[in-house]
Amino acid sequence: RKMSALAGRDNDYIFRQLLEYTSFTYTYILADPESKEAILIDPVIEMVNRDIKIIEDMGLNLKYAINTHVHADHVTGTGEIKKKIPSCKSMISKYSNAKADVQLSEGDKIKFGKFELEVRSTPGHTDGCLTYVWHQKNMAFTGDAILIRGCGRTDFQQGNSGRLYDSVHNQIFSLPPNFTLYPAHDYTGQTSTTVEEEKKLNPRLTKTKEEFIKIMKELNLPYPKQIDRAVPANMVCGMFELQDAKK
Amino acid sequence: RKMSALAGRDNDYIFRQLLEYTSFTYTYILADPESKEAILIDPVIEMVNRDIKIIEDMGLNLKYAINTHVHADHVTGTGEIKKKIPSCKSMISKYSNAKADVQLSEGDKIKFGKFELEVRSTPGHTDGCLTYVWHQKNMAFTGDAILIRGCGRTDFQQGNSGRLYDSVHNQIFSLPPNFTLYPAHDYTGQTSTTVEEEKKLNPRLTKTKEEFIKIMKELNLPYPKQIDRAVPANMVCGMFELQDAKK
Ligand SMILES: [Fe+2]
Ligand SMILES: [Fe+2]
Repeated sequence: RKMSALAGRDNDYIFRQLLEYTSFTYTYILADPESKEAILIDPVIEMVNRDIKIIEDMGLNLKYAINTHVHADHVTGTGEIKKKIPSCKSMISKYSNAKADVQLSEGDKIKFGKFELEVRSTPGHTDGCLTYVWHQKNMAFTGDAILIRGCGRTDFQQGNSGRLYDSVHNQIFSLPPNFTLYPAHDYTGQTSTTVEEEKKLNPRLTKTKEEFIKIMKELNLPYPKQIDRAVPANMVCGMFELQDAKK
Repeated sequence: RKMSALAGRDNDYIFRQLLEYTSFTYTYILADPESKEAILIDPVIEMVNRDIKIIEDMGLNLKYAINTHVHADHVTGTGEIKKKIPSCKSMISKYSNAKADVQLSEGDKIKFGKFELEVRSTPGHTDGCLTYVWHQKNMAFTGDAILIRGCGRTDFQQGNSGRLYDSVHNQIFSLPPNFTLYPAHDYTGQTSTTVEEEKKLNPRLTKTKEEFIKIMKELNLPYPKQIDRAVPANMVCGMFELQDAKK
């Protein structure tokens, strides 16, 4: 029996959504079961052992550990992963000014086996927010640009509501309506949505740009619990030693 | 633009996995976007408003609210759902002796639009545990029979480790290896597995039957927090009024 059956129902690809219960962060494993090349999107430092065990149990080789942006609510797992899997390269937007092995820009392609992700720049929550589009499988990983019936905050880091509105409308809502969207978070127990659903049902992004900016200004959200720990660590992709060495 | 685009990437079906964070229960929405007929597997009473909102926002008609078994860790949402959507019918195994509109047996088919689920009897965690197999989409909903790298407890209700071992080996591991398995719970942030993976990697069910029975006997798990509230309520599918009237 071929081990590629581990891939699951469509056999030609591996896709796993994983959850971290404290910051409600979703992590994604994507892989090509033939070449065994895998990528990991938005790992969380506390869950690195779980993530690596799943990848190794499936016999995959982790090629890239990728962040959608410099997170303010958790420390990325990419630094820990690189310690444990030295061949793995970290990736983040060049607009984030964060340290990583690969700096990504609009239009770049991330290749793993027979698959590739298209990099789309979707700033507004932060300057360096990226959305990764898996055209071959009709999926997109939106980070905090758009959430299920919501969107990322625009009141810290380089938040800018007008930019976020344009990013979602130009770069995400322009995808085919049946594309499944996988966000970096959900706080209501939902795991995915679609382009069509958010274009019709998102309570913020279905409004005009002016109304959206007003809604975001009036949210009055509490200061993020982990931001003072998370952002400095994530600017060096979770490499605490590196961070300490710079002091 | 056709509203069936709400279906997501494959267009011809709707599938959503939902999470309840207290009991770590997964709820599933399955639907046919053409006929709009939907079913809901293992709803949780506290999350009924969320579940109904998603179903109604997508323009679906909920035909059945189904339990995989009489849960001991949460109160089912089926009673509340039937109050809010009177046309919806509840379903549970006839071997559970619980009240419901439809009593299911091995081999029954649950039809929704152009789709159907096959009912498989998988006792061992409880006598009335069912696994629902969606052959058209290479998925199975296993309740607590098999979990991701684990399985349901056999130390309360009608728990029987030998029966559970046989159920998993005969009724679940006999499915094609690429079938995705969706359990009723996961406590590690994983959302799905496959037949092939569990046949290879499940730390309990890859053992011999004798070893499995010994492992289960030695688990020494704490008494389930919600069992005294949940089981009586779930025997009447969460219909508290009905339950009170019987006293
Ligand atoms: Fe963020
Ligand atoms: Fe159970």
